[in-house]
Amino acid sequence: MGVSEAFRFEILGQDKTARAGVITTPRGQIRTPAFMPVGTAATVKAMHPEAVKALGADIVLSNTYHLMLRPGPERIAALGGLHKFMNWPWPILTDSGGFQVMSLSKLRKLDENGVTFHSHIDGALYRLTPERAMEIQDLLDSEIKMQLDECVRLPCSESEVRRAMKLSLAWAERSKKALVAKKGSALFAIVQGGADEVLRVESAKALANIGFDGYALGGLAVGEPRPITRVMIECVLPFLPSDKPRYLMGTGTPDDLLESVRRGIDMFDCVLPTRAGRHGLAYTRAGRLNLRNARHADNPAPVDPLASCAAARTYSRSYLHHLVKSGEILGMMLLSEINLSYYQDFMADMRRAISGERFDDFCSETKAAWQIGESSSKVEA
Amino acid sequence: MGVSEAFRFEILGQDKTARAGVITTPRGQIRTPAFMPVGTAATVKAMHPEAVKALGADIVLSNTYHLMLRPGPERIAALGGLHKFMNWPWPILTDSGGFQVMSLSKLRKLDENGVTFHSHIDGALYRLTPERAMEIQDLLDSEIKMQLDECVRLPCSESEVRRAMKLSLAWAERSKKALVAKKGSALFAIVQGGADEVLRVESAKALANIGFDGYALGGLAVGEPRPITRVMIECVLPFLPSDKPRYLMGTGTPDDLLESVRRGIDMFDCVLPTRAGRHGLAYTRAGRLNLRNARHADNPAPVDPLASCAAARTYSRSYLHHLVKSGEILGMMLLSEINLSYYQDFMADMRRAISGERFDDFCSETKAAWQIGESSSKVEA
Repeated sequence: MGVSEAFRFEILGQDKTARAGVITTPRGQIRTPAFMPVGTAATVKAMHPEAVKALGADIVLSNTYHLMLRPGPERIAALGGLHKFMNWPWPILTDSGGFQVMSLSKLRKLDENGVTFHSHIDGALYRLTPERAMEIQDLLDSEIKMQLDECVRLPCSESEVRRAMKLSLAWAERSKKALVAKKGSALFAIVQGGADEVLRVESAKALANIGFDGYALGGLAVGEPRPITRVMIECVLPFLPSDKPRYLMGTGTPDDLLESVRRGIDMFDCVLPTRAGRHGLAYTRAGRLNLRNARHADNPAPVDPLASCAAARTYSRSYLHHLVKSGEILGMMLLSEINLSYYQDFMADMRRAISGERFDDFCSETKAAWQIGESSSKVEA
Repeated sequence: MGVSEAFRFEILGQDKTARAGVITTPRGQIRTPAFMPVGTAATVKAMHPEAVKALGADIVLSNTYHLMLRPGPERIAALGGLHKFMNWPWPILTDSGGFQVMSLSKLRKLDENGVTFHSHIDGALYRLTPERAMEIQDLLDSEIKMQLDECVRLPCSESEVRRAMKLSLAWAERSKKALVAKKGSALFAIVQGGADEVLRVESAKALANIGFDGYALGGLAVGEPRPITRVMIECVLPFLPSDKPRYLMGTGTPDDLLESVRRGIDMFDCVLPTRAGRHGLAYTRAGRLNLRNARHADNPAPVDPLASCAAARTYSRSYLHHLVKSGEILGMMLLSEINLSYYQDFMADMRRAISGERFDDFCSETKAAWQIGESSSKVEA
């Protein structure tokens, strides 16, 4: 039972628990497993939007919290919506702001109706409720909207995790009610429950019972040990409707993506490829390269001569090293491109491997290739 | 009498003292009057090199001083030269480093054979002589090389300006000797003499007598009043060979370019379009726009709907304002593009106006258009 009508998810291939499919939205299709580049403040940092699309992204994520503070959702709506504003005519998912309120804002005050906080930019006072979060996302006009949730920092007491999970659940129901009048817009619920299997399952079951267009796992990738994330995925997914997209929020490294897709996750977002790029790191088929490292200073080789990304084939490691050391913006631009391209190609490879029912082999081959890169970098570093 | 054989300058059109022409180099032609975007550290800041070319640049400038310090000219040579290093296969002019030694380095010590200084990056000790400046530029493999000169800060005593001019003159002669063995490489001399007409003319005459492939006016655009630059151009140009390119270093605003082309200057370089772009300023046919200004926050209009630059036509002023206020790299990228495109289109328009012998009319029309923009911005600001 979905909230909207114009939103559709089809599973096209399956290999054990891994699945490949396509989400249809009024603004285009999203091939899954999908990686969504993060455009926090209505821009994927250091990237032209048409380049983000050309590298293979079907959808980007943007943030309710950031856009609420600056430039303001009413302003964006008056200017014709977020797609027009940021020159991205394809699908957009908007996060609800729950996570950012926890991680960025000052002097937060939570009650059962919402959260009041001070902007991290200028200290101004804001109020976010489940209804206001839906209203903002409606003003932004995103294809996929996220319910407002309360995200606790881990580790955290069981009672506190339970309270936050219950509150998020109540807010999920209110979010769905707030959206009812709107057509062609998908609403995703967020499973909470910290690192507690019982609470996670309780959250998943209750949300599935209400019925949403998709289900996200929230409150993970916030610093907890990696095995916990994987255990949480494994315990929760059986209780979510298999015909709806499953989205692991804020993840992750290529290895995180591989292990999560293997377990049945369909969607991801993460700042890692662009943030790492701005700090001199390149993700490649042969593992991660730190271009800041002096061993690249005289290396005329490109990052990857076989990459689909022109920047990875064209520019030498020596030049990228020079740009990174000099703090040049072009270095951030090129490495963001290289990383986003790697991530999108990696998702496409996973989709093909699932459809070809050879995902396990693909995982082994991919991890072996990463090891080669990592061990060679250990030797040379 | 030129130094090289593969370097050629032809004047194709003339309108009073303004001239339009073309410089031929082994790596391509340069249409004059030419504006050279500045790629200080082997990158035009926040720009893909292919975009710099696509916007109309025939040549970029890079800096001996910066590249000597990092990554080092011997390294660049071992990697195949500067063109390959920075992925710019078209002509490059390298500045000699004289100006940067004055403006950036610490604990400078000058003698008649050269200058010893500490790097502004790590304090390391360097020595630059006329011969070493030529050697570095030879390692970089630029098409147009600049002599090492001594650049004094204005205002400055007549005797000090005279001494520096005489020293620059001696270094010009030594630079030419140092380059003699090299073919296909052009050497430009630099006229010095501060704001003193007599010294400037003496410098110009002496350099013309030695014979170079081109002549630059140095030590201007360093903070002196604008009328002084124009007077210096007017007094010096009659004493420089009319069949060689004339290059006003480090200039300037669109108005500076117009007034200098009118007087007979053929080449320019300046950080202004890219630096201003990184600080939220856009240059347009209707004058300068400060996108940081709150009056743009709700304006859906593009920077210029008739610009040849896609970024100037596509993105709204409201979005650019948002990017600038948020410190987003995309704002720097788009405004650098918009400004470089405006500068290159402006140079092309000047070339056409000169060839059509309607440069005076073009100047009046252009200045009137700028006034419209400026007065409208005064009203709204």
